[in-house]
Amino acid sequence: MKAIDLNCDLGEGFGAWEMGNDPAMIELATSVNIACGFHAGDADIMRKTVELAKARAVSIGAHPGYRDLHGFGRRPVPGLKASEIENLVAYQIGALQAIATAAGHKVTHVKAHGALSNVACEDDTTAHAIASAIKAVDPTLIFVVLANSLLVKAGEAANLPMVHEIFADRAYEDDGSLVSRRKPGAVLHDPSEIAERVVRMVQDGAVVSVTGKVIKARADTVCIHGDTPGAVAIARGIRNALKESGIQVAPFKKAD
Amino acid sequence: MKAIDLNCDLGEGFGAWEMGNDPAMIELATSVNIACGFHAGDADIMRKTVELAKARAVSIGAHPGYRDLHGFGRRPVPGLKASEIENLVAYQIGALQAIATAAGHKVTHVKAHGALSNVACEDDTTAHAIASAIKAVDPTLIFVVLANSLLVKAGEAANLPMVHEIFADRAYEDDGSLVSRRKPGAVLHDPSEIAERVVRMVQDGAVVSVTGKVIKARADTVCIHGDTPGAVAIARGIRNALKESGIQVAPFKKAD
Amino acid sequence: MKAIDLNCDLGEGFGAWEMGNDPAMIELATSVNIACGFHAGDADIMRKTVELAKARAVSIGAHPGYRDLHGFGRRPVPGLKASEIENLVAYQIGALQAIATAAGHKVTHVKAHGALSNVACEDDTTAHAIASAIKAVDPTLIFVVLANSLLVKAGEAANLPMVHEIFADRAYEDDGSLVSRRKPGAVLHDPSEIAERVVRMVQDGAVVSVTGKVIKARADTVCIHGDTPGAVAIARGIRNALKESGIQVAPFKKAD
Amino acid sequence: MKAIDLNCDLGEGFGAWEMGNDPAMIELATSVNIACGFHAGDADIMRKTVELAKARAVSIGAHPGYRDLHGFGRRPVPGLKASEIENLVAYQIGALQAIATAAGHKVTHVKAHGALSNVACEDDTTAHAIASAIKAVDPTLIFVVLANSLLVKAGEAANLPMVHEIFADRAYEDDGSLVSRRKPGAVLHDPSEIAERVVRMVQDGAVVSVTGKVIKARADTVCIHGDTPGAVAIARGIRNALKESGIQVAPFKKAD
Repeated sequence: MKAIDLNCDLGEGFGAWEMGNDPAMIELATSVNIACGFHAGDADIMRKTVELAKARAVSIGAHPGYRDLHGFGRRPVPGLKASEIENLVAYQIGALQAIATAAGHKVTHVKAHGALSNVACEDDTTAHAIASAIKAVDPTLIFVVLANSLLVKAGEAANLPMVHEIFADRAYEDDGSLVSRRKPGAVLHDPSEIAERVVRMVQDGAVVSVTGKVIKARADTVCIHGDTPGAVAIARGIRNALKESGIQVAPFKKAD
Repeated sequence: MKAIDLNCDLGEGFGAWEMGNDPAMIELATSVNIACGFHAGDADIMRKTVELAKARAVSIGAHPGYRDLHGFGRRPVPGLKASEIENLVAYQIGALQAIATAAGHKVTHVKAHGALSNVACEDDTTAHAIASAIKAVDPTLIFVVLANSLLVKAGEAANLPMVHEIFADRAYEDDGSLVSRRKPGAVLHDPSEIAERVVRMVQDGAVVSVTGKVIKARADTVCIHGDTPGAVAIARGIRNALKESGIQVAPFKKAD
Repeated sequence: MKAIDLNCDLGEGFGAWEMGNDPAMIELATSVNIACGFHAGDADIMRKTVELAKARAVSIGAHPGYRDLHGFGRRPVPGLKASEIENLVAYQIGALQAIATAAGHKVTHVKAHGALSNVACEDDTTAHAIASAIKAVDPTLIFVVLANSLLVKAGEAANLPMVHEIFADRAYEDDGSLVSRRKPGAVLHDPSEIAERVVRMVQDGAVVSVTGKVIKARADTVCIHGDTPGAVAIARGIRNALKESGIQVAPFKKAD
Repeated sequence: MKAIDLNCDLGEGFGAWEMGNDPAMIELATSVNIACGFHAGDADIMRKTVELAKARAVSIGAHPGYRDLHGFGRRPVPGLKASEIENLVAYQIGALQAIATAAGHKVTHVKAHGALSNVACEDDTTAHAIASAIKAVDPTLIFVVLANSLLVKAGEAANLPMVHEIFADRAYEDDGSLVSRRKPGAVLHDPSEIAERVVRMVQDGAVVSVTGKVIKARADTVCIHGDTPGAVAIARGIRNALKESGIQVAPFKKAD
């Protein structure tokens, strides 16, 4: 029986501000990525999100981003040295590890956020810096990598356990990269289209690009978003469609 | 032979801004407290400071403060719940632990910074929250506590290893608390007066208050400041005076 | 015919985060207070909010708060000198003035936010510092002051035009101060109770305290909140009740 | 008699952190650019710097930068819309105007800082957004533009009064742009070389590029840095060399 993990970014509020619908999304995800205070999140929200995940026995990962609260980590920060990227990733992982330890839970994976991830998918230095940071902090942490991106190579070079990710609601270019959010059609909104698409991705081990090209893509986990309109409905649709197709929704295991 | 540790706050720059003279102070201290990004410091400065300490085989501690870059953590943040204090302390410890691990060094102690420390010395809730955070993250971390303050009781209640601290350049009230920086004479500036005072404190196990009262104070470590004018000269004076008095300057050991 | 202004705090998002329902509230308010970037708001949100107000011909005011994004300006910042409070208030007023000028609108009043206002209501130094800042930047700006608070005296001493404010949904102590948010019953939630209460406050020129004491309170403007559950319904209820009681809802005029 | 203005960036500390030697540099500059809180500076430092300039009768300008305290505004912020750049520039100008008004001084010019300026020199959208913001806030403000850059065209399009700037200690490319700080030789350090170079630039109305090419460059003001090692000595050298060459050092006037 095929199985797939559904991962979701949570804990993306800051102070008095909220983002998305965490209590609903935690019911639908099998692993969650927790913002670590640089692009969103703070120590209190991290604690609360860890506790939410622990209560649901959902595995947690660090979701490090650029230092950019105002831009929600969606803007690249050009000119950082590899060592600076390593330091900011290590810092954020450690912060979440301590919060998780204090709450009796454990960080098991790391997934880069927003622009840090986007840049890393196409920039070797950034990809390797992220992988190096994870390895230096804890080489048993699972590196969640966008399928077919430079993150895969960086994770291999660092010999990190990895899971490959595909996106439920994002269009793909012919080269397997995500269509930029600035282009029309980059983000899909129709719940049934998205659900059907995810089932096919998992069944075929491939994504279909905007031009119809079929691109092989290992899918260990599907990213479901919690901060878009209709997010909860979309995620429910995906879960139901997977179930109906006989695909098990379950936390990812360490890959080799 | 009597022995005493000299601890110093380091890594208190931020981005392009510097504070104090870290390379000089690291030569004079036997343990250092590293700012963790809330009142000062950032991931890069933390890494650099950890490496500096590692190269000198100096032990390192987390120096968590309130979230207050603009006020350098010197202003109290009223109204925080105990859980919020726990979370911000845990977060900062974890961040430094990861940076230290990545650099091949290890965090061995925790000392609260500025207003967080000052408030905790007189407020039970804050003192216990700090101790709880340390215990929850790693109960083997040494808690550096101001001698005769509420921090001592909080550390005892949490069953943490502790070292007791006295201040080289601060005047004491009759009750053993530090004279507020707002009062005249709160900070001493004369290197020879400070050096002589430290020797007496260590030899007698006591501090002398502003009114001349002798107050018993266990002294495992002396805080030397790096960010005041003449800081380096003062610290050198203390080291020399201790040496001449036959007191060994050496890293603190875990107390019971 | 009696008339009353309804003022509302708007523009309290930050970056990607939103707060309250600005488009709905702007329909109900006759003057708005715009966050200036210290406790909430940023240059883009300020611009958008100014344009929203301009399109509805609603008058705008600066809503300066403590530098405290994480705490939403609800925590006091102890230990600021009078000059520091003056500077932070002046800075925020000026920032909004420039944004308003660029958008073809004009700042006509100033109302302190959250803890800055609460502290000022009871602390002479803070109250005078706020009034001094307004006077120094533009002495024709209207100072919105909580009725019966120290802000009134500070505004008088600075010879500023003032309007007196009462709160629709907050309980009052016998001395005319607001019941602390930490006490039960501090915030009222029942729309019809709130609406009825506001009508009485305006008709009688008085508020009724938690013990039933009637306290004279000049009411030029009523603060309606936009960020609480049911905020829009409450504000609509107030407007309707005022209308039914023959009280005109209209922007405040400069008082003497 | 030829005359030239010497402009210097001041007020670049933040909270407890200092940068450069403002009291020394204010003696040497005839106009100063004051950081406005986004890349450096805060309301208190702005006030202090305005007062310093007022006491010396030195004219002041706003020195807006990207929102980037950690990177000191030296990193580009990609992806900002023109309106977002306008808003952040307007905000910063207004903040300084209010502080200046409160201190009895007046903002007379605007010069973009760091990466914001560097990007604008080569990116039309950014250059026009800065000029638009200045015009929208106050069209009588003088726009300080790097000679031969896109800023000149943007200022002309907005019909702003302008002064053209050359750099004392920076090497120039053949196209008149500054050599990137990442290249060797980008920044000059020898005081006598720099002084001689400035005199020639002013006398000839031209700069000499790294390859020896002479590039016409109108020079109304020379930028002298205050935050580099030897900054004060370099600035003194420039002033003396200009004096000896019969060039008057005086505040710039509005150009047409």
